[in-house]
Amino acid sequence: MKIGLLQLNPIVCDFEGNARGIVQACMEASGKGADICVTPEMAVIGYPARDLLLREDILEKCMQSVHRIARETSGMAPLLLGSPWRFPDQQEQVYNSACLVHKGHVIKIFSKVLLPEYDVFDEKRYFCAAEAPGVFEFQGKVIGVSICEDAWNDEEFWNRPGGGVDPMQELARQGAEIIVNMSASPFGIGKHRIRQAMMSSLAVKYGVFFLFCNQVGGFDDLVFPGRSTVFGPEGDIISRGRQFEKDVLVVDISSPAKRDIPEHDYDVPAEAWQALVLGTRDYVRKSGFSRVLLGLSGGMDSALTAAVAADALGPENVTGVLMPSPHSSAGSIDDSMKLAECLGINTCILPISSLMQGFDKALEDVFAGMQPDVTEENIQSRIRGNLLMAMSNKWGDMLLNTGNKSELAVGYCTIYGDMAGSLAVLADVPKTLVYDIARWLNTRRGQVIPEVIINKVPSAELRPGQKDRDSLPEYDILDKILRLYVERGASVEDICARGFEAGMVHKVIGLVNKSEFKRYQAPPGIKITEAAFGPGRRMPLASRCFIKG
Amino acid sequence: MKIGLLQLNPIVCDFEGNARGIVQACMEASGKGADICVTPEMAVIGYPARDLLLREDILEKCMQSVHRIARETSGMAPLLLGSPWRFPDQQEQVYNSACLVHKGHVIKIFSKVLLPEYDVFDEKRYFCAAEAPGVFEFQGKVIGVSICEDAWNDEEFWNRPGGGVDPMQELARQGAEIIVNMSASPFGIGKHRIRQAMMSSLAVKYGVFFLFCNQVGGFDDLVFPGRSTVFGPEGDIISRGRQFEKDVLVVDISSPAKRDIPEHDYDVPAEAWQALVLGTRDYVRKSGFSRVLLGLSGGMDSALTAAVAADALGPENVTGVLMPSPHSSAGSIDDSMKLAECLGINTCILPISSLMQGFDKALEDVFAGMQPDVTEENIQSRIRGNLLMAMSNKWGDMLLNTGNKSELAVGYCTIYGDMAGSLAVLADVPKTLVYDIARWLNTRRGQVIPEVIINKVPSAELRPGQKDRDSLPEYDILDKILRLYVERGASVEDICARGFEAGMVHKVIGLVNKSEFKRYQAPPGIKITEAAFGPGRRMPLASRCFIKG
Repeated sequence: MKIGLLQLNPIVCDFEGNARGIVQACMEASGKGADICVTPEMAVIGYPARDLLLREDILEKCMQSVHRIARETSGMAPLLLGSPWRFPDQQEQVYNSACLVHKGHVIKIFSKVLLPEYDVFDEKRYFCAAEAPGVFEFQGKVIGVSICEDAWNDEEFWNRPGGGVDPMQELARQGAEIIVNMSASPFGIGKHRIRQAMMSSLAVKYGVFFLFCNQVGGFDDLVFPGRSTVFGPEGDIISRGRQFEKDVLVVDISSPAKRDIPEHDYDVPAEAWQALVLGTRDYVRKSGFSRVLLGLSGGMDSALTAAVAADALGPENVTGVLMPSPHSSAGSIDDSMKLAECLGINTCILPISSLMQGFDKALEDVFAGMQPDVTEENIQSRIRGNLLMAMSNKWGDMLLNTGNKSELAVGYCTIYGDMAGSLAVLADVPKTLVYDIARWLNTRRGQVIPEVIINKVPSAELRPGQKDRDSLPEYDILDKILRLYVERGASVEDICARGFEAGMVHKVIGLVNKSEFKRYQAPPGIKITEAAFGPGRRMPLASRCFIKG
Repeated sequence: MKIGLLQLNPIVCDFEGNARGIVQACMEASGKGADICVTPEMAVIGYPARDLLLREDILEKCMQSVHRIARETSGMAPLLLGSPWRFPDQQEQVYNSACLVHKGHVIKIFSKVLLPEYDVFDEKRYFCAAEAPGVFEFQGKVIGVSICEDAWNDEEFWNRPGGGVDPMQELARQGAEIIVNMSASPFGIGKHRIRQAMMSSLAVKYGVFFLFCNQVGGFDDLVFPGRSTVFGPEGDIISRGRQFEKDVLVVDISSPAKRDIPEHDYDVPAEAWQALVLGTRDYVRKSGFSRVLLGLSGGMDSALTAAVAADALGPENVTGVLMPSPHSSAGSIDDSMKLAECLGINTCILPISSLMQGFDKALEDVFAGMQPDVTEENIQSRIRGNLLMAMSNKWGDMLLNTGNKSELAVGYCTIYGDMAGSLAVLADVPKTLVYDIARWLNTRRGQVIPEVIINKVPSAELRPGQKDRDSLPEYDILDKILRLYVERGASVEDICARGFEAGMVHKVIGLVNKSEFKRYQAPPGIKITEAAFGPGRRMPLASRCFIKG
């Protein structure tokens, strides 16, 4: 039996385009001899559609789309199609379903049993849980249908109590010989290892072929890596789809000789880079833009952001804006121009000294007798934000934000200033990883980012002689503390017990807690770690956290 | 039996202060003869604590706080205390619980059965659901314990299938004669009617005393109205706590003669006003600020925001900043000064003409040959945002945002410009309600807001002669369309079928859909309707909604 896995990249709510993509992929798979095809989870609408799923009209469109795709694929192989579903007699209950369509009809519905309700996932907000997964017979084989999370509750693999329901076990009990898993499983650095080990162990445990069909593409803050994979009953990988690209994978499981398995690059900087490029490309294009601009400071973050953008959209569609102030080093211009040349992107220069003087003058009376402080640094940053947004408005280019995760964590950034932008490309990239990616990129492709930028001491250049390390711990220390506190939820005591100096730990955590209000208004970022700021982290604002800043 | 309802206003994560407040209120109730006391839901930490509830260290603090309060109230009446809870043998499972503490010990735990998972609520993210609610005997009576949502699933009252579990029915089955409902039930315009009718019907249905003990105060985007209420078995109101204020309510249910029941003002503008004042006061103070500033344009929105702030914090703690441009009418200054005089707030004037010229000049080359458009309007708005934030930074005053819900809905606002601020006071107040509240205020208190401001034609004054109605439908029409689309989830077809002109409906809905990216970065607003923008509305950004803008 040949099974086609349609690794698709839908646009949320683009019913026309998504249906077209599914039908075309189904046709391609049928052309390659597929006897049956499978889409990722929620393929008709794209994942996550979030609160659009609460709208009656949108649910109606999903149902119509399923029927339409059924009609349009009526001459092709049967298709397991991901969509929200409501049964005629229970209109209030919406399921996250797999619709088996064949010969123009919807012939069976399978629904998701385990609805994730953690991190970025809110599925209990939208869906009812099915009581059990189901199987169907096809060409003499029993095929079990699972949807994403359904595969992630194996007591043995996770070595924890599963809390009652294990859809995999239930599918095995129903006699499944092949288990498909229709997924929208987001990218995270290193997550493939766990995913692959888990799926392989399930294939072995139940002696089944396990077919993981994953969505691909950028969806706001999330990137889906594709990497659809077919495991044999020994747990071996029989076939695998492309990473970070659309693919149609047709696998003959009745003669499962291993075929060409595309190499995936699992190095941390390599997979982070690819996720950032895809996340940026899709966010920009799915928002209806083709060109972007960004501020170039001569520093590491704007350099890497520019490199990502150039790769994602083509250098001709990227403009770097240089906005020197009297506090800018000579390098801020020279190094930025050198970078732009390496990348082949456009540039323009807008000095801001006279605007700074204008603000000083406008505020002269109300600030009389008060000393310069962080206020003046923020004014500078917001002048740049205003200029960048003006160019974005006038030219119709999207403004990319260049801030990294470490500075966003401690609030070392200016709201409405360097925090402006429609997408924060590096918002989930700790500063130390920013460097790692840049170095990896230069190793791979020659000097994409000038070494002088990689080697300079980080500075916001908002006052004379300023360096990041005057206000913050060195980044290798800072990132370790942040990882423990923000990503792992460690307590102050735990962190100190690992040997970090207590005063520094208190300072860092105080900064994190007191900058929640800034992050509330931050642009969406591209999630690449296990815990990003954004929709998957929901913090109160007017609270009194146990550590003061 | 005398029962004390402790209508408290905690600060999220202020374990010290919250514990002190609980102990003091318990002492006060004991002093008034209470035999047993009840707190609102989650009283030790405050509701909602959001993702702080995922932290091990915070859960530990909650447990410690329960034990501490138990010790400190050991000489007082027993107390039903709201807190997260973990049982020693199941550390992974956290419940939303009521801890019965007496004589220094935690003697019984009751946990919430129904966990809300809609609108602003994410309780399944944090808590396990209890299988059933429980009762205990006290002074010869059976008291049933329910927590907030547990009371909101009566099939008869809602005339819908309850989906299996009805904790009220179960408490009645267990013989409850008194049912307490420990709540954190947020304010919404008109919601009291449903809440009161429902609770009254439950008291009658089960022939019980029903005691609703609600949290009070502002918690980021949510306001809790208090209004704790005691219903007799006939469904009559025996006693009621204050609205929008802390209160300790002690009710003798063994001789339930009606006592003084404080009047509550349920007029729409009256209750909206009180919610805005409390929401603003608590957000500012719980964030550690005492003073605010805001831009005064001479228009209705900034006038009402200033009035709310003056009431919330005292006029001496409010500064109105006038920032006239060449497009500002004479009225923008005169009317704002008149308003400031009426309210007794501080003012300062910072003209922005020369800054506008500065930006024009800075952008001269890059904008060469391009016509003025909305870009220049946005620059103006962002100059004002920069000046306001500079004063906020320098003085340590919080910047209040003055935008209303109607303009936020259609994106008639400038990101990083007039969308700047730490709290958007009117973000959930449709423009027509802004007027209603202003008129109500003037009727109640004399001319708080000058009539000239109420009567002028709305204008952003960002270009010569500009009026809102040149770009948007009249606000009474706009607000009706927005209510149907945003709050009720009606489809385009439904809205047109109600007689609104199709072209206008398409235009408005297109504007709503294409401004999701602005709202993603908007400040928190105070929720007063059934569907606010903010944490309770989660929309995808790079999507293709079925109507284009």
